[in-house]
Amino acid sequence: MSQWLQPSEWLWNVKTDQPTYVHQWVKQLSAIEGKPDLVVYGAPISRSSISVSGASLYPNEFRRLWKGFATYNLDEDADLTDLKVADAGDIVMHTTDILLSHRRIEEVTSEIVNKYSESITSMIGGDHSVTACAVRGVKKVYPSERIGILQLDTHLDVRDPADLGPANGTPIRQLIDEGIVRGEDIFNIGLHGYFNAKPLIDYAKQHSIQMVTLKNARKAGVVESVKEALSQLSEKVDRIYVTVDMDVLDISVAPGVPASTPGGLSASELFDSLLVVGKYPSVRHIDFVCLDPSKDSPVAETTKTGVYAWLQFVTGLKLR
Amino acid sequence: MSQWLQPSEWLWNVKTDQPTYVHQWVKQLSAIEGKPDLVVYGAPISRSSISVSGASLYPNEFRRLWKGFATYNLDEDADLTDLKVADAGDIVMHTTDILLSHRRIEEVTSEIVNKYSESITSMIGGDHSVTACAVRGVKKVYPSERIGILQLDTHLDVRDPADLGPANGTPIRQLIDEGIVRGEDIFNIGLHGYFNAKPLIDYAKQHSIQMVTLKNARKAGVVESVKEALSQLSEKVDRIYVTVDMDVLDISVAPGVPASTPGGLSASELFDSLLVVGKYPSVRHIDFVCLDPSKDSPVAETTKTGVYAWLQFVTGLKLR
Amino acid sequence: MSQWLQPSEWLWNVKTDQPTYVHQWVKQLSAIEGKPDLVVYGAPISRSSISVSGASLYPNEFRRLWKGFATYNLDEDADLTDLKVADAGDIVMHTTDILLSHRRIEEVTSEIVNKYSESITSMIGGDHSVTACAVRGVKKVYPSERIGILQLDTHLDVRDPADLGPANGTPIRQLIDEGIVRGEDIFNIGLHGYFNAKPLIDYAKQHSIQMVTLKNARKAGVVESVKEALSQLSEKVDRIYVTVDMDVLDISVAPGVPASTPGGLSASELFDSLLVVGKYPSVRHIDFVCLDPSKDSPVAETTKTGVYAWLQFVTGLKLR
Amino acid sequence: MSQWLQPSEWLWNVKTDQPTYVHQWVKQLSAIEGKPDLVVYGAPISRSSISVSGASLYPNEFRRLWKGFATYNLDEDADLTDLKVADAGDIVMHTTDILLSHRRIEEVTSEIVNKYSESITSMIGGDHSVTACAVRGVKKVYPSERIGILQLDTHLDVRDPADLGPANGTPIRQLIDEGIVRGEDIFNIGLHGYFNAKPLIDYAKQHSIQMVTLKNARKAGVVESVKEALSQLSEKVDRIYVTVDMDVLDISVAPGVPASTPGGLSASELFDSLLVVGKYPSVRHIDFVCLDPSKDSPVAETTKTGVYAWLQFVTGLKLR
Amino acid sequence: MSQWLQPSEWLWNVKTDQPTYVHQWVKQLSAIEGKPDLVVYGAPISRSSISVSGASLYPNEFRRLWKGFATYNLDEDADLTDLKVADAGDIVMHTTDILLSHRRIEEVTSEIVNKYSESITSMIGGDHSVTACAVRGVKKVYPSERIGILQLDTHLDVRDPADLGPANGTPIRQLIDEGIVRGEDIFNIGLHGYFNAKPLIDYAKQHSIQMVTLKNARKAGVVESVKEALSQLSEKVDRIYVTVDMDVLDISVAPGVPASTPGGLSASELFDSLLVVGKYPSVRHIDFVCLDPSKDSPVAETTKTGVYAWLQFVTGLKLR
Amino acid sequence: MSQWLQPSEWLWNVKTDQPTYVHQWVKQLSAIEGKPDLVVYGAPISRSSISVSGASLYPNEFRRLWKGFATYNLDEDADLTDLKVADAGDIVMHTTDILLSHRRIEEVTSEIVNKYSESITSMIGGDHSVTACAVRGVKKVYPSERIGILQLDTHLDVRDPADLGPANGTPIRQLIDEGIVRGEDIFNIGLHGYFNAKPLIDYAKQHSIQMVTLKNARKAGVVESVKEALSQLSEKVDRIYVTVDMDVLDISVAPGVPASTPGGLSASELFDSLLVVGKYPSVRHIDFVCLDPSKDSPVAETTKTGVYAWLQFVTGLKLR
Repeated sequence: MSQWLQPSEWLWNVKTDQPTYVHQWVKQLSAIEGKPDLVVYGAPISRSSISVSGASLYPNEFRRLWKGFATYNLDEDADLTDLKVADAGDIVMHTTDILLSHRRIEEVTSEIVNKYSESITSMIGGDHSVTACAVRGVKKVYPSERIGILQLDTHLDVRDPADLGPANGTPIRQLIDEGIVRGEDIFNIGLHGYFNAKPLIDYAKQHSIQMVTLKNARKAGVVESVKEALSQLSEKVDRIYVTVDMDVLDISVAPGVPASTPGGLSASELFDSLLVVGKYPSVRHIDFVCLDPSKDSPVAETTKTGVYAWLQFVTGLKLR
Repeated sequence: MSQWLQPSEWLWNVKTDQPTYVHQWVKQLSAIEGKPDLVVYGAPISRSSISVSGASLYPNEFRRLWKGFATYNLDEDADLTDLKVADAGDIVMHTTDILLSHRRIEEVTSEIVNKYSESITSMIGGDHSVTACAVRGVKKVYPSERIGILQLDTHLDVRDPADLGPANGTPIRQLIDEGIVRGEDIFNIGLHGYFNAKPLIDYAKQHSIQMVTLKNARKAGVVESVKEALSQLSEKVDRIYVTVDMDVLDISVAPGVPASTPGGLSASELFDSLLVVGKYPSVRHIDFVCLDPSKDSPVAETTKTGVYAWLQFVTGLKLR
Repeated sequence: MSQWLQPSEWLWNVKTDQPTYVHQWVKQLSAIEGKPDLVVYGAPISRSSISVSGASLYPNEFRRLWKGFATYNLDEDADLTDLKVADAGDIVMHTTDILLSHRRIEEVTSEIVNKYSESITSMIGGDHSVTACAVRGVKKVYPSERIGILQLDTHLDVRDPADLGPANGTPIRQLIDEGIVRGEDIFNIGLHGYFNAKPLIDYAKQHSIQMVTLKNARKAGVVESVKEALSQLSEKVDRIYVTVDMDVLDISVAPGVPASTPGGLSASELFDSLLVVGKYPSVRHIDFVCLDPSKDSPVAETTKTGVYAWLQFVTGLKLR
Repeated sequence: MSQWLQPSEWLWNVKTDQPTYVHQWVKQLSAIEGKPDLVVYGAPISRSSISVSGASLYPNEFRRLWKGFATYNLDEDADLTDLKVADAGDIVMHTTDILLSHRRIEEVTSEIVNKYSESITSMIGGDHSVTACAVRGVKKVYPSERIGILQLDTHLDVRDPADLGPANGTPIRQLIDEGIVRGEDIFNIGLHGYFNAKPLIDYAKQHSIQMVTLKNARKAGVVESVKEALSQLSEKVDRIYVTVDMDVLDISVAPGVPASTPGGLSASELFDSLLVVGKYPSVRHIDFVCLDPSKDSPVAETTKTGVYAWLQFVTGLKLR
Repeated sequence: MSQWLQPSEWLWNVKTDQPTYVHQWVKQLSAIEGKPDLVVYGAPISRSSISVSGASLYPNEFRRLWKGFATYNLDEDADLTDLKVADAGDIVMHTTDILLSHRRIEEVTSEIVNKYSESITSMIGGDHSVTACAVRGVKKVYPSERIGILQLDTHLDVRDPADLGPANGTPIRQLIDEGIVRGEDIFNIGLHGYFNAKPLIDYAKQHSIQMVTLKNARKAGVVESVKEALSQLSEKVDRIYVTVDMDVLDISVAPGVPASTPGGLSASELFDSLLVVGKYPSVRHIDFVCLDPSKDSPVAETTKTGVYAWLQFVTGLKLR
Repeated sequence: MSQWLQPSEWLWNVKTDQPTYVHQWVKQLSAIEGKPDLVVYGAPISRSSISVSGASLYPNEFRRLWKGFATYNLDEDADLTDLKVADAGDIVMHTTDILLSHRRIEEVTSEIVNKYSESITSMIGGDHSVTACAVRGVKKVYPSERIGILQLDTHLDVRDPADLGPANGTPIRQLIDEGIVRGEDIFNIGLHGYFNAKPLIDYAKQHSIQMVTLKNARKAGVVESVKEALSQLSEKVDRIYVTVDMDVLDISVAPGVPASTPGGLSASELFDSLLVVGKYPSVRHIDFVCLDPSKDSPVAETTKTGVYAWLQFVTGLKLR
């Protein structure tokens, strides 16, 4: 047939030898030769969210929009294609059995972390409940290691699972109460305003969670505060797990995150922070959660910001 | 203080002796004297939905918007305030334990049906999974009665619970497989187009579900078809449960129902049908499901249509 | 790796032996064994549109949304999987050379019509300029045949190419002026209201275009009028080309068509008409044009209507 | 300067000798030679609306969008340019003095009706409060004439001015209570559902307003019902004033009317009715009210429907 | 009945002994024991706005959304529940008599200020016309006091009431011309760009209004500029009235304020300023005006920003 | 007729002796007495855009919204009416012949630059393809002059015209390859993130385009960086052409620019830069491109930002 007839986009994705856009560069995990530098996988669940959320749609939208991003970071003059990035696909979620879905996230994370022990992992949520599962999965592989958490979040997420089950308001408390992570090994940067009820703040204080309010972070500089947190964590833990609840972003730049608020982080503050996070050697795992593409602005502002944020982390890896 | 200072709306709702709007007329269940003609209650769950749904928000929005509706039906010259309508409130749903939430719907329905045996009940969903729970609840009160179902729906909702759990695609199959309702005692009116996969149609045929396509319903007249279905059911069952999946409506009039489709029922066809349904003596229970106010048009077209639909049923009751 | 890790949607599309949804059933042209009953291909151009249009995005969105449609037509009890449908992909358009893009549409259409002479073709536009190209392409293969056109459209599309070039307001005039189709062999059904300037109506009258206003069509019944037009055409032409400008639909059901108007065709009228069109033996080619997904409602009402419309035509083919 | 530089749209509007679009045809009142057949003028006030309304923006949007309409009615094969239509501009409204603004509407209407006694007048509102002013203005010119009103409306608009002042819920009651129009000389077609509180219905009955519910209108045919109303009015009154509250339209076709409801008139029913209204000799005045362009759909569906409706009336005039 | 049946939200609001969210903490004025620290009341009028505005809807939306805010300010580690906050409800506005509505605002403000002379008052508008009424009300209680105004606003609001009546563009001029406040006692911070016509600037200069452009405010620091203004005012006036026209915010963070503009205040600048304002002893009254929830973004960004802003002021009070 | 009847806005624009708003101040070119200080003209083409764009609608919307801007810059205390600004109207574009349209832009620019050699010119696009045409037009008038370009843009726009034709991704490369401007004489400020593929960066480096990333610009200060670029250019070129691709703005402040991205310029940074640009003597020409009003937010945030940006440039001129 005519050279002018091309299979349409839904049939497959064009592959090239010299990838210049993200979708041409990221390879399916099974197609990677050698060890990937980074494994990305999706945990598309949001029925565990307290309020209605379509964050389960994010992994797919994330990949759909990364086609609009080049593989070259102009600010850092860095060519990302030097890194091998593998897409492991999405974890299959059960339609109604939330506990089963959560167990699968834990198991799959264990498998990936075990098999690709030298790779960095980045999980794309889903609501914040997935973080507890993934950290548990990491812990299973490294039971004797001490895991630290850097949490970029407007909320503490220490609500009581006894009330809510393993909902998206509870992951940090699950991990503390189960003894998987110590409160003192958790830094939360991004807290601000009126979005954590007093009993939750009391819990955080009792368990020595390191609460860095945005006001204080900005006094020292957000990037400096992130560096300081990573530095303090590195001194006492074996590996750092970073969890980015996209609701840490200000509502004006993240309309597509149901729980985003006024007074939050700017996109630039997040981008600069993730560059630092990516560079930091003891950071081994990262997740991005709670972005609901179905609530995004018509121009997909939030999802584009989500892809950009992930690429900043990747640029950091490249510059390690 | 000044007579010009009035408590604001969020503090309470004004009550009057001569109610002219719905919110002034419907009373809290505990405040009703004597037996209510109709009990309305909410089942605000939608995390059991296959696709993302905010139908859990509907019971509250339904009540918020009924303030815009008068208690007088001008077409029928009928004053609805002659009926006693009681609002029993909403069933408290668990955040992550779907099975527990479903059991509560079943139990509360049983309680209401048992205690107010002479009242008609109308449940406001929630996604379609709630129907299986409610019918089970009715059956528990009347174990020896034969229950018929009139389903207004674009879909058969007979997907396999073995795959999905008790999700919103499965309620009819749950009821048939559990022996609570016979396939032959179920009329589905509203089926059309390309929205039921062949295996589901095969299941429906095997279990003798009465499938009335919209095309055929319109040949006889939709209202006539509804009457005919009710008439046939009345001959063999003891009580009729009506379930209105709002996705039966055409997508142009029901943007706020995630599964609504082109080629569906018009609002008028639904309104006329519900008047007939309300009048029909053996109809004892009705539910309205799958309306997601968070996806509604800016002018709340779908929710207003939902309130109107419910009032048509109430008008029918009044005219019984 | 874990059975619970599945390649994500962007990587490929799941194929099954027993397709129940459209994307599982339609095959890539090169993968079809034997002769396809229907070939579908995209002509993604809309920079030839007089007003700003994103109709070039339609072929891709059309395919993305057909995943939500089952392969079984319940109204007609027809299993579409008996037909072989081949997707030939999209014609590659030049970024700025409109004439070149148009020539490619003509050439590719010729190739397909020539190579799959027994297949029906359905082209997915793009704006209405593509129709002139495609008809020219057909004519090139069958130079001695007389081609008739059934146009479902709110507009005559006989503006002067001398003024506008081959824009989307001109295709019918191009074909008449070039002697490819006679005015008398063109039926336009759907004309109504105030959307054709007098000089255009004068042109149509001079060239004996069969103008069937919606008002008159409804008097006889829209479906009957379509049948009558097909019947009259069949008596004098060798093959019928059907062009569906989606702006024939009423603005309330087709917000995603920039030129849709009040007073237009209902979705049901279009669906019923296309069933008849699909059944009609001398109909060999169809196109659907001017649907701009970027202007569609948040629930993609228009694109879903577009897929439904195409499936009605396919159902008609199946029932031939 | 270059012939290719043209003054931009905001500077002036192109005039041609052979107008084919509405803005080329309608002339400013001062530029009309001889007597106009129709005078159109705007009454841009909506701060008298009970609920928030931007109907004051309608006159300007109405004119901005009429550029998209041709001057030829294809359904009726009627060339509207045979009529002289004059645009008298908008009445200047005071920013906060509602009573003053209302008096100006009354005075200006009197002036126009007096000076152009042979012309038909069409006022573009504004909210429905303007109708009372305009009818008063007509009455001032013809104090001994008996004026009948045909009201196409979902609401009776007989709320008590003693409570609300001359708000948009009160115009009909103002006119009855002031003795300007008799209740029996008012036909309201379009009433339906649950949108008029019982005390208002009681008032209407007491004053013998002719209430034609949509249900009853449709039994006889909406157009027939309109004809019948006009016929009955003609027998007893000297001139008929028609007021079209655009909330008579169904919410699915009139999202840009704050008070539109489910179960309302279809666009076609309105269009067909206005053709009849335009043809009817004793109809001398018409207004269109309550359309709020700021709430319209992104494709301006309601405003386009408003222009179409007005053109149907004009077509009727042409066919008189 | 079952413990799982709870009255729905519209029936009442849950009260608890240990309030953790704003709606659980704010009490109705009549239910307060002892003297409230702060009285909040609504002035829901916006038909006095020059352009169409739904700011009348704000008081109710403000309260509806404060349910999403905790009573603990994490940045300041401050527990707001130490303060007694009373909600006095909304002032009843007349539907069409703007002057009467304005008098009621003046009277009710006088009553509250008089009866709760030790309380701070916060009025929730409404458009900016309400400020003139409220300041007049304060002046009536303290006729011999000198009142200073800190105005955060993009506009001077000194248009001429002789032209517009007491519209939202005129309140500051009303107060100056009536001798209630001296021009020199008014600081306007937030002025910028091209949003005040020259004659208004001339008026402001003639009356010595202290105009602090945003450019200059930012040079010194916005918070420092606010402090300086409060300090200068405190030296000469007896009490300070603060009026926050939400259009002072940049259009990117305040889409729900019809008159917001590019180049305006950031949310953080406003939040930081209001903390300072709340702390300042001579500030006795504050209002928030011109936020129109009907134009807000789908995620209610502006209304949430409005609640946050008010809470910052309250935090300031707590820290006094 | 009554003094209260005023011609409506579409008929003409009010002119006054003392203009206080932009539309009262800018005059049609033919109505200007003496030499204009600034000529503004529109190049309404966007079918040359790679992705779908309605930037062709911008010139008209730009003028429609400038009515909301006063002619006084409060930050600079500058009265713009001291300048003579002439509107030359829009260049007439051909519907489908892109090359012809481009030639007209070139020719008209030449004519204006030639005839008004002492005036500054500001062209309002249109997509970025228009810049190549306009610079060519300038060059034709001053063939021996060396032209420098300051480009504020997220993209390099050096894609290959051999592939795309003269599309909006190619103008800078056209000018370099044609020898009209040297790569070294082009400063691009605003580049950031992942939006330029590596081959384009390679081209830019080969041709010595001065790439100033946003990161580096912010280190020195964006305004300082702009000054430095202008200063360096001034030393070697005869005249500076400034092109502002509005996609340089962050997506959160420019939703109405299809190619805007996260991490872009803030509105304030752009406004401050344009003030400096306007002041700079060797800047003779400016254009603003790629703003698509049809994609703007409901409150027209981007278009308002576009008008503000242009006024900042004008303020700069005034302060020269």
